[in-house]
Amino acid sequence: MTTELSQTEPTQFVEAAGIRFAYRRFGQTGGVPLVFLQHFTGTMDSWDPLVVDGFARARPVILFDNAGVARSSGSTPGNVQAMAEHAVAFITALGLKQVDLLGFSLGGFIAQVIAAEHPELVRRMILAGTGQEGGEGIRNLPQVLEQARQHSPDELRLFLFFEQTPTSQRAGREFLARQARRTADRDPESSEQTVGAQFTAIVAWGADADGRATARLQRITQPVLIVNGKNDIMVPTVNSFTMFRQLPRARLTLYPDSGHGGLFQYADAFVNEGVRFLGE
Amino acid sequence: MTTELSQTEPTQFVEAAGIRFAYRRFGQTGGVPLVFLQHFTGTMDSWDPLVVDGFARARPVILFDNAGVARSSGSTPGNVQAMAEHAVAFITALGLKQVDLLGFSLGGFIAQVIAAEHPELVRRMILAGTGQEGGEGIRNLPQVLEQARQHSPDELRLFLFFEQTPTSQRAGREFLARQARRTADRDPESSEQTVGAQFTAIVAWGADADGRATARLQRITQPVLIVNGKNDIMVPTVNSFTMFRQLPRARLTLYPDSGHGGLFQYADAFVNEGVRFLGE
Repeated sequence: MTTELSQTEPTQFVEAAGIRFAYRRFGQTGGVPLVFLQHFTGTMDSWDPLVVDGFARARPVILFDNAGVARSSGSTPGNVQAMAEHAVAFITALGLKQVDLLGFSLGGFIAQVIAAEHPELVRRMILAGTGQEGGEGIRNLPQVLEQARQHSPDELRLFLFFEQTPTSQRAGREFLARQARRTADRDPESSEQTVGAQFTAIVAWGADADGRATARLQRITQPVLIVNGKNDIMVPTVNSFTMFRQLPRARLTLYPDSGHGGLFQYADAFVNEGVRFLGE
Repeated sequence: MTTELSQTEPTQFVEAAGIRFAYRRFGQTGGVPLVFLQHFTGTMDSWDPLVVDGFARARPVILFDNAGVARSSGSTPGNVQAMAEHAVAFITALGLKQVDLLGFSLGGFIAQVIAAEHPELVRRMILAGTGQEGGEGIRNLPQVLEQARQHSPDELRLFLFFEQTPTSQRAGREFLARQARRTADRDPESSEQTVGAQFTAIVAWGADADGRATARLQRITQPVLIVNGKNDIMVPTVNSFTMFRQLPRARLTLYPDSGHGGLFQYADAFVNEGVRFLGE
């Protein structure tokens, strides 16, 4: 049996900027920690254990709930900039001088802002299922969610995170089963306040950014690994290629037969590449 | 020390379709062999030993000179279709019923034609530094070669295969040193006939292909791994993204700070991913 620290690691709390942040810290003790930045509506328990434990076997990892999310206090702000500031306050409160970031979707928006504005804090960054400010299709979240409600009322993520093929949908059901495995000390679902504020933040991030997005990407001089599925309907895959071209030091991996949740569908390949990338 | 069969493996010959093909076959004995399809002007000795030996430690590998190239007899045809037919004749003459293909640049054009027209013969395919028929910028080979002559008369490949940065140029010089390491039983350079005919074939492949290119890609149902460098000036990198979108089962990896020869600059990462891909 492989170690599954994501299943048993207790939740801790740390206070910063008036927020009591819930977090879990585990994995290897040496090296720069990898901080996970979560997607729209997600909590610490929305991550795929295959991904979290895969990284934890090679690196120190930190999961946390940002301000207002699940068990963290405060209210969730309605813009990415403030979310990034909260994340920096949390990281700093842990006494960390340098971290690696893994940002998925909304978490990837936050990661970009942190890397651009706090270059000394971020060593390397993994961006999954995400896009630059003003990126193609990001502003269409309301329509995508409307469509999702029509397709699968019980499990939105099968529609939103996976391709509409039998293979990808099966991978999606396996992901959901893994993600539900932890039972003790589990985060509550995100509140309506959090979901509403995150929705606002995503739509605002998707608005025209003129040259601001390009300027931000060009300021991110850290090595970046970008990954996504072939047909991401939440943050269209073309944005991954655009970020690859504009970031000075990015590499890009796109998976077949997959969507927004490509990092979970191809968890083994993703962890293999991610661990190699962080170890360079 | 790691095994470097690419340095010592003797050249063999096999007759097919009136051509005497020069080839080398080595590496693991079990499993589907990986046949390498070479670039414009290249011979068996133009490959990077790090790549060839890396695959050979995990798979059976086959290098060969196509019709007219280096020590193979016959004359080099001026179109990709005929090159593909010669390659199929060679593979068939070895008694092989199924192979994997690694096509680099012109070799990737040939690989696409073989995979589309002989689906039973090709199990999996790796396409590096290449593009679909009619792909963006492929027809500009004459201008690119003209520019290359102005930049670096001594070593065209530093300009053509690597990015104009100190790091990529250094990686290029290391590649050239590796590639020159074999001294015994080495292929001669390609003849003027071969270079001229390959030039004609590449420019023709780059001409408008209407819907033919898309139709061919959609017929290739084998799993495909596409790789390239960030700024390929011979077969522009955007073509890798286009192929990824149109091939039914492709994955894509693009490397930073690199060009056409990204597979050599990132030989370790490329072999790691390629061996995983072929082993799935």
